[in-house]
Amino acid sequence: MKRMEELLSRFNPDTGTIDGAPTVTRRLSDLRNCFADERAYEAALQQGNPIIYTVASVEPAAGDGQLHYCIGMIMPGRVGDEYYLTKGHLHEWRPAAEFYIGLRGKGMMLLEDINSGESRMLDLVANSAVYVPGFTAHRTVNVGAVPLVYLGVYPAAAGHDYRTIAEKNFRKVIVMRNDRPVLMEREEFVRGLGLI
Amino acid sequence: MKRMEELLSRFNPDTGTIDGAPTVTRRLSDLRNCFADERAYEAALQQGNPIIYTVASVEPAAGDGQLHYCIGMIMPGRVGDEYYLTKGHLHEWRPAAEFYIGLRGKGMMLLEDINSGESRMLDLVANSAVYVPGFTAHRTVNVGAVPLVYLGVYPAAAGHDYRTIAEKNFRKVIVMRNDRPVLMEREEFVRGLGLI
Repeated sequence: MKRMEELLSRFNPDTGTIDGAPTVTRRLSDLRNCFADERAYEAALQQGNPIIYTVASVEPAAGDGQLHYCIGMIMPGRVGDEYYLTKGHLHEWRPAAEFYIGLRGKGMMLLEDINSGESRMLDLVANSAVYVPGFTAHRTVNVGAVPLVYLGVYPAAAGHDYRTIAEKNFRKVIVMRNDRPVLMEREEFVRGLGLI
Repeated sequence: MKRMEELLSRFNPDTGTIDGAPTVTRRLSDLRNCFADERAYEAALQQGNPIIYTVASVEPAAGDGQLHYCIGMIMPGRVGDEYYLTKGHLHEWRPAAEFYIGLRGKGMMLLEDINSGESRMLDLVANSAVYVPGFTAHRTVNVGAVPLVYLGVYPAAAGHDYRTIAEKNFRKVIVMRNDRPVLMEREEFVRGLGLI
């Protein structure tokens, strides 16, 4: 059996880190084509290149039946009316699901069924779990005023497909309207900006 | 895609429940043959039949790649020198792993590799995750003074095999020695009691 240090990990909901685990950092410049409002994106980049989110992962074992987990932290903020967000991904192994568990802050998950095209916007807050079924693209956004921190648990065999999202993006966007997050058709949102 | 109510669940680390999810309750009388000290077990049963632990589960979907999760709550207490514990189980689908995430209280997990026979005793406390690899029997004990509450996330296809544990039990026990939990050979512990 693995050593104790490989079986036990400690995570920190304040820093969004896992002791000893590598952390990936995504800055604004890494998120080109993720925000629908390209004008606001370019303007924001002129102002600086802040960290938008970090992800630290623990991958104890590979193979069918095994699991991985990660801790994600998304900073509070917006680009235009769009909340800071993750790139979003599908699993390479399409049937693979994922559980998200909220630890701190106020977030939303955007889910899009790749077969039916249906979307869902779901709260991600402390003491809640969001189930991302297989065959479902998912993105997380921070709609609050403090960092959003959450865990994700997924099959070791899932794999991450960012390419499909990068090419097609999501059909819907989560944007601020009257100080609240609402789910809108991406095209409608972009049309409203006068960008198409 | 499933309805929002089926994708989002709220759990309560104080009550060890998940809104709308069925809860299984295990009382002392349900745990016959789980404690090594049979004399202390029978004596405790004469005093009453308290709840030892509860488990509530969410099973959004079946099939390969899907996941389930549960919240467990173990009461504080002991039978003789053995801390209150769960029955423990193997997964029917032996390669299936599980992540345990501590929410509240002070617990320990007992892991036993069914191939090598090796055992591990690991802390289960808030802000920590214990990885239970495939092919590993696992039991949780409460070594603290308040209820121990934790989440478990596992493949939907895992299944629970309680029978194998009920027949063979674990090779080791977690018992109190000088007010601290220690891992001992079950046989040595029982011999020390004069029961064999």
